Amino acid sequence: MTSHPAVHIDYPDWVEDIDWTRVYSSDLERMQLAITVARVNVERGTGGPFGAAVFESESGKLVSVGMNSVVRFNNCTLHGEMVAFMMAQQRVGSYTLKSPALPAHELHTSCEPCAMCLGAALWSGVQRVVCGAAREDATILNFEEGPVFPESYKYLEDRGIEIVHNVMRDEARAVLELYRSKSGKIYNG
Amino acid sequence: MTSHPAVHIDYPDWVEDIDWTRVYSSDLERMQLAITVARVNVERGTGGPFGAAVFESESGKLVSVGMNSVVRFNNCTLHGEMVAFMMAQQRVGSYTLKSPALPAHELHTSCEPCAMCLGAALWSGVQRVVCGAAREDATILNFEEGPVFPESYKYLEDRGIEIVHNVMRDEARAVLELYRSKSGKIYNG
Repeated sequence: MTSHPAVHIDYPDWVEDIDWTRVYSSDLERMQLAITVARVNVERGTGGPFGAAVFESESGKLVSVGMNSVVRFNNCTLHGEMVAFMMAQQRVGSYTLKSPALPAHELHTSCEPCAMCLGAALWSGVQRVVCGAAREDATILNFEEGPVFPESYKYLEDRGIEIVHNVMRDEARAVLELYRSKSGKIYNG
Repeated sequence: MTSHPAVHIDYPDWVEDIDWTRVYSSDLERMQLAITVARVNVERGTGGPFGAAVFESESGKLVSVGMNSVVRFNNCTLHGEMVAFMMAQQRVGSYTLKSPALPAHELHTSCEPCAMCLGAALWSGVQRVVCGAAREDATILNFEEGPVFPESYKYLEDRGIEIVHNVMRDEARAVLELYRSKSGKIYNG
């Protein structure tokens, strides 16, 4: 075999419109960004209705965003949270965001993570996960969330990760509805 | 902000030594390859002691391999199974390996998948997951497997994915022991 595949993941051009330099002080400001990323992803046709962002918890500095990129890159692993983790780790140059040399990091995601993303949250090194829409909101659109159980969240909490649910849930759910109204592709049918 | 990170994932050079053109007929032949990928990854110092491969179930054609690449790329998501899924989807040009236009695909992995990889297996479109070493074998090395429960496997099985455990478990565990003997980095501590 002469050639092997390679995977390249980058942001769509519209991330330039994000304010990367401001301070995101509150959960509402941080979640608003995650939801905006989800919404713009749908409006620009670059992916599914899910967005996420990684912040430094104390400073409110934006480290990365992530938008669902499954269809854009033919890659089932590229949920919004996964892209946010990958890009954050690229930026800080570490395979974990939790190290003595780094400030605490947290993830804001426009929808509760699927089984894959919840597992990745544990490996990512974020110390807090804040969720917008709920699992049921996604499953109404026939998006599968996979094997996530109450014990799954407890497993992370037992390892020191704070989980917060239902932050701006209505606004986050509205993006799911927008996607449905545009007959967007349901890639995990 | 003038520049954004990007993620690039490719194979280490030693994948050239794999026989990409032969037919892998049996579970033993397929698992042997997954274990070899894990072993060479340790021997060459390109990552953790975990390997995987995606095959066409019927033909035995090798579609992709995946080796743990977390440290090599500073990316917590790059477990062996994840790399195998990504590369297989790149090769076939689809975000799912399960479509009417494609033959059935299956994953062989040198160790039972962590929570992230088990979730990804559901999204990947593989219709069979064959495991070598068991969760306990990995945890002895202090590798975490995350929130995986008996119901997690059942969730996949209920959706038509066959799961097989303990294929060549001793050989697979030996690679974990090799890694330990070399004092390899435990990146999910």
